[in-house]
Amino acid sequence: MTEYDYDLFVIGGGSGGVRAARVAASLGKRVAIAEEYRFGGTCVIRGCVPKKLYVYASQFPEHFEDAAGYGWSLEPARFDWRKLVANKDREIARLENIYGKNVEGAGGEIFHTRATIVDRHTILLVNEDRIVTADQILIATGGRPNPHVALPGHERCIYSDEAFDLAELPKAIVIAGGGYIAVEFANIFHGLGVQTTLVYRGKEILGRFDMDLRRALHETMEAKGIRILCQEIFTAIDKRPDGRLDAHLQGGEVLTVDQVMLALGRIPNTEDLGLEAAGVERGKSGEIIVDDFSRTNIDNIWAIGDVTNRVQLTPVAIHEAMCFVETAFKNNPTRPDHDCVPTAVFSQPEIGTVGLSEDDAAKRYAKLEIYRASFRPMRHTLSGRAEKMLMKLVVDAETRRVVGAHVLGPDAGEMAQLLGIPIKAGLTKDDFDCTMAVHPTAAEELVTMYKPTYRIENGERVD
Amino acid sequence: MTEYDYDLFVIGGGSGGVRAARVAASLGKRVAIAEEYRFGGTCVIRGCVPKKLYVYASQFPEHFEDAAGYGWSLEPARFDWRKLVANKDREIARLENIYGKNVEGAGGEIFHTRATIVDRHTILLVNEDRIVTADQILIATGGRPNPHVALPGHERCIYSDEAFDLAELPKAIVIAGGGYIAVEFANIFHGLGVQTTLVYRGKEILGRFDMDLRRALHETMEAKGIRILCQEIFTAIDKRPDGRLDAHLQGGEVLTVDQVMLALGRIPNTEDLGLEAAGVERGKSGEIIVDDFSRTNIDNIWAIGDVTNRVQLTPVAIHEAMCFVETAFKNNPTRPDHDCVPTAVFSQPEIGTVGLSEDDAAKRYAKLEIYRASFRPMRHTLSGRAEKMLMKLVVDAETRRVVGAHVLGPDAGEMAQLLGIPIKAGLTKDDFDCTMAVHPTAAEELVTMYKPTYRIENGERVD
Repeated sequence: MTEYDYDLFVIGGGSGGVRAARVAASLGKRVAIAEEYRFGGTCVIRGCVPKKLYVYASQFPEHFEDAAGYGWSLEPARFDWRKLVANKDREIARLENIYGKNVEGAGGEIFHTRATIVDRHTILLVNEDRIVTADQILIATGGRPNPHVALPGHERCIYSDEAFDLAELPKAIVIAGGGYIAVEFANIFHGLGVQTTLVYRGKEILGRFDMDLRRALHETMEAKGIRILCQEIFTAIDKRPDGRLDAHLQGGEVLTVDQVMLALGRIPNTEDLGLEAAGVERGKSGEIIVDDFSRTNIDNIWAIGDVTNRVQLTPVAIHEAMCFVETAFKNNPTRPDHDCVPTAVFSQPEIGTVGLSEDDAAKRYAKLEIYRASFRPMRHTLSGRAEKMLMKLVVDAETRRVVGAHVLGPDAGEMAQLLGIPIKAGLTKDDFDCTMAVHPTAAEELVTMYKPTYRIENGERVD
Repeated sequence: MTEYDYDLFVIGGGSGGVRAARVAASLGKRVAIAEEYRFGGTCVIRGCVPKKLYVYASQFPEHFEDAAGYGWSLEPARFDWRKLVANKDREIARLENIYGKNVEGAGGEIFHTRATIVDRHTILLVNEDRIVTADQILIATGGRPNPHVALPGHERCIYSDEAFDLAELPKAIVIAGGGYIAVEFANIFHGLGVQTTLVYRGKEILGRFDMDLRRALHETMEAKGIRILCQEIFTAIDKRPDGRLDAHLQGGEVLTVDQVMLALGRIPNTEDLGLEAAGVERGKSGEIIVDDFSRTNIDNIWAIGDVTNRVQLTPVAIHEAMCFVETAFKNNPTRPDHDCVPTAVFSQPEIGTVGLSEDDAAKRYAKLEIYRASFRPMRHTLSGRAEKMLMKLVVDAETRRVVGAHVLGPDAGEMAQLLGIPIKAGLTKDDFDCTMAVHPTAAEELVTMYKPTYRIENGERVD
């Protein structure tokens, strides 16, 4: 293998690429990684991390309101968007720095440049106009928001990337999309005081999540004051003489707003990478096609993370990176396990979920027991906030296995993480039942629902 | 059994007694329950529920401070203690009402009176001066704060019962005790702006919890401004001419405060109950002695909850009630399971814990792996708050079972609840490892600690 400059060359410095580079380097492999923009990738630079910081920022007005029922009096608060953006930038820069240092600390080499594949063992470092060679190549270039070029006026719109760094906070925004990014940003902007409308072509927001949670979140968001238009799409975005935008809806309504944000899916970053030169196959959406071990059709070229369009989540990309290193460098072929991935939507209230929705479980199991509880979280008994918490367990009646757990409410993301352990391990409802409650918590509901709320047999609710 | 007025007479309308009465009544049994004070017991009236409401109240000042890093500007807030107390009272009254209605709704009868045992089948309803008879008697009279009469001036002190209803918020308070009640109230009063000192005779607060958490919480509380004096006790509490109190410490210092609160353990309510008349045996602390099925030495008299001084927690009392009904009325002898009870301390930050502390595990297992992570929660990257979150898994190296899980930080109570499921079920560290992370959460740390921080063999740390 000494004929190559590197044992491994990683293209893309996001969560997956950095993890693969770091771990391979720590095994003593000669590793390099190239990133054209900023180390950290979508998650750190323009995804999970800044998103969650903005979620925190947008929750404060509810904290301020809730305080009154607890005896606190406050004057109205003032919000400085630029301060939030600047503080976010400082934190992101700190994390970006850590990402790079972690690779170097493990003995890897970092290139701040776009890198393209010349042939299956050769990479061009574009900024340096230099060629290097590698035994194995890992593509981890991630994805980006779908620009939706079919929409007239899409060039006047922003995407999640820009939403983090607007020069000023809009007074009114309309967001297109019904996925978790659209929903999270709608809640963020609303929480920060922006008049917010969500436009989604589907019947209900958050497809693939459990329908009870989708409906309950929809209702709660509307009760907060977010306008949600389902089964509706934009036909054009026009600029007005005053600089604002008119978003034309198919139904005829025109929404005049300061910003239009498109959150209509994400597409893989596979253009101008040299994939054709190397003969790497792509799928219909442009994604790199890989086998169960993240290997492309070219046996020394691999791909992980969003660029493969499997499950687009940071921990999944990291998991794929770990499996890749096992497979490629430790003689231990390891398939990434994409089954039973717990996940959260940082909407307000949050969603946390793992396993199957009721509808999906009904297709797979002949007999289900559904345990459902809806209640006002204790915090809101004094705050007076009307929001309810929803918890739901989907149980296969024959094996007693809990095949799905769904939470809407405060800390649902934390709960989904820990519900992931018993559900991945295949524990039963009896295991939940014999766990002692912790009082007073919200999660104790999940271990004290002793009787099914209803049953489903062969897809039909039977009570 | 028709020779008796009731199949079951329950003395005490707290969580355990009400549950037993309700469930037995729902089986068609003729049930009565007597409560001399207020239905709901310690948990609802002067324990878990008002405590947690006051915790919420006391957390707002930190929310207000944390907001600045997220771009929010606030004028100083004002706090109205009486409003908090009044709003708490309204909520408690609502819950109290629900407790009573639940029993009646199931067909049980309620008596608002003290009840004492005349003989093994006869009960005196004191307020009505009336005798009733019952086949089975369940004692669920709970406990109360130890008045610590040995302390000169103890009559000038308050206990947790009174702390909820003080006419005004003290400017300075000293609390004696190192258990969870003392620690929780110290955080509540400090959070509400009271100059707070905690005095504890032991070496470190919160005995029986994991030492890492005890130390870390101690440090965090001190960093907030709570003064903690360990290995120190009061010698006397004197009243000053100005009406304030002087708390004299053994070390010579005198703390001048507005209130002195004693939280020095709880004692069972077994006096003047007629236990001697019925021949019911009690233990050294006055607690009712019961067998594995909650039965006293008199075979138709049972006891559950705090009065038995087993595990003094609401969910445990409820569990004992459910087991009692199975045993006494469903011909299904069922032992309450007191093993692996998850629990929380609603300190600030919270503690959530299940299973064995490192020290206890080291006595039981020859080889342990300790996984530990300490990090700043994401919320505090922008708030600037220095508090760290601590997470710890204690793993039996031979079986790979996770035998203890310990969390200090936001939402630790919710986490303990859900960690209770896999740990009660005996899942292994591998089950934790194969659970996908949910990002960004705090709990993801618990499934991504891949390498032991250190090892323990035969009680010695070996790294």
